Amino acid sequence: MNELVLKPIAYIRTDFPEKFGIPRQSGLADTVGTIVFEKEYGIREAVRGLEEFSFIWLIWGFSGNRRKSSDKDGSPDWRPTVRPPRLGGNTRAGVFATRSPFRPNPVGLSSVRLEKIEFRPDDGPVLIVRGADLMDGTPIYDIKPYLPYADSHPDAKGGFTDRTIQAPLRIHFPEELRVLLPEEKVSGLMDVLREDPRPSYQDDPGRIYGLSYAGRNIRFRTDGHDLYIIDITSAGN
Amino acid sequence: MNELVLKPIAYIRTDFPEKFGIPRQSGLADTVGTIVFEKEYGIREAVRGLEEFSFIWLIWGFSGNRRKSSDKDGSPDWRPTVRPPRLGGNTRAGVFATRSPFRPNPVGLSSVRLEKIEFRPDDGPVLIVRGADLMDGTPIYDIKPYLPYADSHPDAKGGFTDRTIQAPLRIHFPEELRVLLPEEKVSGLMDVLREDPRPSYQDDPGRIYGLSYAGRNIRFRTDGHDLYIIDITSAGN
Repeated sequence: MNELVLKPIAYIRTDFPEKFGIPRQSGLADTVGTIVFEKEYGIREAVRGLEEFSFIWLIWGFSGNRRKSSDKDGSPDWRPTVRPPRLGGNTRAGVFATRSPFRPNPVGLSSVRLEKIEFRPDDGPVLIVRGADLMDGTPIYDIKPYLPYADSHPDAKGGFTDRTIQAPLRIHFPEELRVLLPEEKVSGLMDVLREDPRPSYQDDPGRIYGLSYAGRNIRFRTDGHDLYIIDITSAGN
Repeated sequence: MNELVLKPIAYIRTDFPEKFGIPRQSGLADTVGTIVFEKEYGIREAVRGLEEFSFIWLIWGFSGNRRKSSDKDGSPDWRPTVRPPRLGGNTRAGVFATRSPFRPNPVGLSSVRLEKIEFRPDDGPVLIVRGADLMDGTPIYDIKPYLPYADSHPDAKGGFTDRTIQAPLRIHFPEELRVLLPEEKVSGLMDVLREDPRPSYQDDPGRIYGLSYAGRNIRFRTDGHDLYIIDITSAGN
């Protein structure tokens, strides 16, 4: 009855191999993502004119991001209310009033900046985007141009998100660690950490967190509004 | 392989029983739509806090709007390029550079103004929205809050849509016909007609068009930038 079966048209490669550290919305961290089409859709003609848009919409699947419980007992993978991180993690909001992944149909929606389109012999058109809040390997079900005359409502009321803008953390990134990260990955990591990737109900100054980013393991601790990067190792180690 | 099956969570009721006349994007015509949840999702808790957002996203299915050819011969219901009406209907653009319904995964994306939420004993929460570009009876697969800090890019380049803003038509709506339409439906109809619902490659001053809207059949003709409403009858006649 009006069920719709979506097939991935593309997959995105990002610097986020796991859920922890993924920005909570698009545009919050200036990291680069690479969208590679599936063979059937990787046709130069299919993106003709797309390069004239500065943003695109991605409709994608929360595939790597589901509660495990649904596999075990077959219970539905959504509840009427969720606890959005922006509300500190202990206030409930209706699932349709949030962008939570735990929704009846687990589709995500993100606007990302389209930096350029590369045409690669083996992959066809490849979209280079900035600001994606997607895990590495996320399936993409649709790509649409961002139409400012229809999609942009700068004066829209943002509900609870209007009241919860938090001060960014101050990042302490020692020079001897900074050189362990490729130059072009530094500012993205700073963005990610500034937004505070910790679960918002945790504030434990003693705790050391590990973040996987751009092929590295980043270890850090926090103290109030300060965040200290204490170690960087290759993800293989 | 990463296929995703979407179930309708709701259906929308609008004044557009057929494709002809539906605004080409959301927000272009100030018409009212009513979103009624499916039993399983029509829970007051599931929309808690949604009333604090002024816009919501609808992710929906182009269910009533597909090419018939795919039913007949099983060929895929998309082509790499389409002819967007904004380009006059005779210039091709890549399907992913347009919002055409004829895309690999036939999902639509629309931001609509959330006017209010009514709680009805039989239907649960009902969302009253304005500006929907959806056919009556369209299945809705997801509802998300519009987050201005992530979703609004007023300075985004709109590609070919930046170059094709057309002058609105001047509507001639005789008083004796106007009274045949419920008062609250008049401005929506004017919006629809002003945007010129005709296929953009047609400019035939002799031709009479019929538009189904709000339970009426509206007949009109055009001449240059003028549009003349010539008849209104009940849809049952």
